[in-house]
Amino acid sequence: MAEKKISMAVVKRLPRYYRYLSELLENGIDRISSQELSRRMQVTASQIRQDFNNFGGFGQQGYGYNVEFLRTEIGKILGLDQTYHVIILGAGNLGQALANYGGFAKRGFVVSGIFDVDTEKIGKEIAGIRVLDRSGLKDFVETQKVDIAALTLPKAVAPEVAGELAQLGVRAFWNFAATDLNLPSGVVVENVHLAESLMRLSYNIVNRLPCE
Amino acid sequence: MAEKKISMAVVKRLPRYYRYLSELLENGIDRISSQELSRRMQVTASQIRQDFNNFGGFGQQGYGYNVEFLRTEIGKILGLDQTYHVIILGAGNLGQALANYGGFAKRGFVVSGIFDVDTEKIGKEIAGIRVLDRSGLKDFVETQKVDIAALTLPKAVAPEVAGELAQLGVRAFWNFAATDLNLPSGVVVENVHLAESLMRLSYNIVNRLPCE
Repeated sequence: MAEKKISMAVVKRLPRYYRYLSELLENGIDRISSQELSRRMQVTASQIRQDFNNFGGFGQQGYGYNVEFLRTEIGKILGLDQTYHVIILGAGNLGQALANYGGFAKRGFVVSGIFDVDTEKIGKEIAGIRVLDRSGLKDFVETQKVDIAALTLPKAVAPEVAGELAQLGVRAFWNFAATDLNLPSGVVVENVHLAESLMRLSYNIVNRLPCE
Repeated sequence: MAEKKISMAVVKRLPRYYRYLSELLENGIDRISSQELSRRMQVTASQIRQDFNNFGGFGQQGYGYNVEFLRTEIGKILGLDQTYHVIILGAGNLGQALANYGGFAKRGFVVSGIFDVDTEKIGKEIAGIRVLDRSGLKDFVETQKVDIAALTLPKAVAPEVAGELAQLGVRAFWNFAATDLNLPSGVVVENVHLAESLMRLSYNIVNRLPCE
C-alpha cells in the first residue's frame, strides 16, 4: 500500500497519527471520523484526508476510519512491523532513561546491549541488561544483530565511536550527542539535539510565539 | 538587529549555527568565511548568506564572519542573552539527565527546582538540588521566578500538571511526555517526543533514506 516519494512533511506527521491512534485504541475507540480525529489532533480534517491519500486513503468516508486497521497500516509504513535490536552507547542518565522506557520495546525496539567505559557502571544492570565494557563493542557487533546504535555519550567521542560502528556495519544511529556525525552515505541518522530544542524554546519565549 | 517575521525554517537552523560557532570559538577560530562554514556544516554557502541576511547580514564578504560577533548576535536572537529559571517535573532518569547536563546552565538555563511524587526521590539531591515534593509546587511557583517547566513525568499526568502550572503563570514548557498539551494561547511549548523520533528513524531504515 505504501508508495515511495512521500514528502518528508507527511512522514514527519505519521508518528503523531500513530500515537493518537494508539491512544484511541487504548481507550476502546475503534472507529473515528476525520472530523473527530481533526478535533483531537488540532489539524484540519482536509489535512488528514490529504495525508492519508498518500497511502491510498485508508478510510471509508461517512463511516470514518477503522482505528486498528489505520494504526496497523501506518505502523507498517513507519517500519514498526519489524523488530530492531538497539545498543546504547553511554550508560549515564540519558542512556538509562532510554533503556528503562518500556514504550520502545512495545514498538519493536529491543535494547540488546548497553556499553560504557566507566568501571563504576560496567557490570551493573539497567532494565535487566548488564552494562558491558565498550572495549568489547567490536566483538559484540560482529556476533550479534545490531540495527540501531543510540549514542548517549559525550560529543567529544561520539563521532569516533559512530564511525567505528558504521565500519562494523551498523546502519542506523539515534544520536543524542550535541554534534553532527559525518557518516558514509546509506547510514541513517536521527538527531535529538536537546540543546537546540531548548534554544528554539527560548526563541519562542522571547518572540512570544507558540511552538509547533 | 533582529527583525520579526523570520520564517520558522530559518529559526530552526539558528541553534545549529550557534552550536557550530560555539565549537569554532572553543577551537580558537575567530574568523570564518561562508565557504568554510558551509563545508563544515554541509549546507550551501548561499543558504548561509541567505539565512544571515534575515538579520542584516552580520558579515563582511571577503573577510568572512567574525565568529564571536556572529555567535553573540545569533545568541541574542535566540534569547540566550537572558537567564531562564527552569523547574523539572519528574526526577526519573530523564529529569536527572536534564538536571545533570552542564551545557544548559552555560546557555543561561538554570535549574532552580526539581519535583516528584515518589517518596524515595523526594529529599535526595540531583546536581546539587534537593528534589521537592510536588505537593509544594504551587507555593514554589507563587514565590519564585519560573520561566520554563520541563516535563519529564508520565504522559497520564503531564497535561494536568502543565495546566496547573499554566494557571499559576508559567509561560513555557519543555515537554518530554508522549502527549500533547493543550494549553492557553500565549503559552509556548517545545515538544521532545522521543518515541516519534524513533519512528522517524525506523521509517528511514525501512526506506533507506538518510535523515536530516
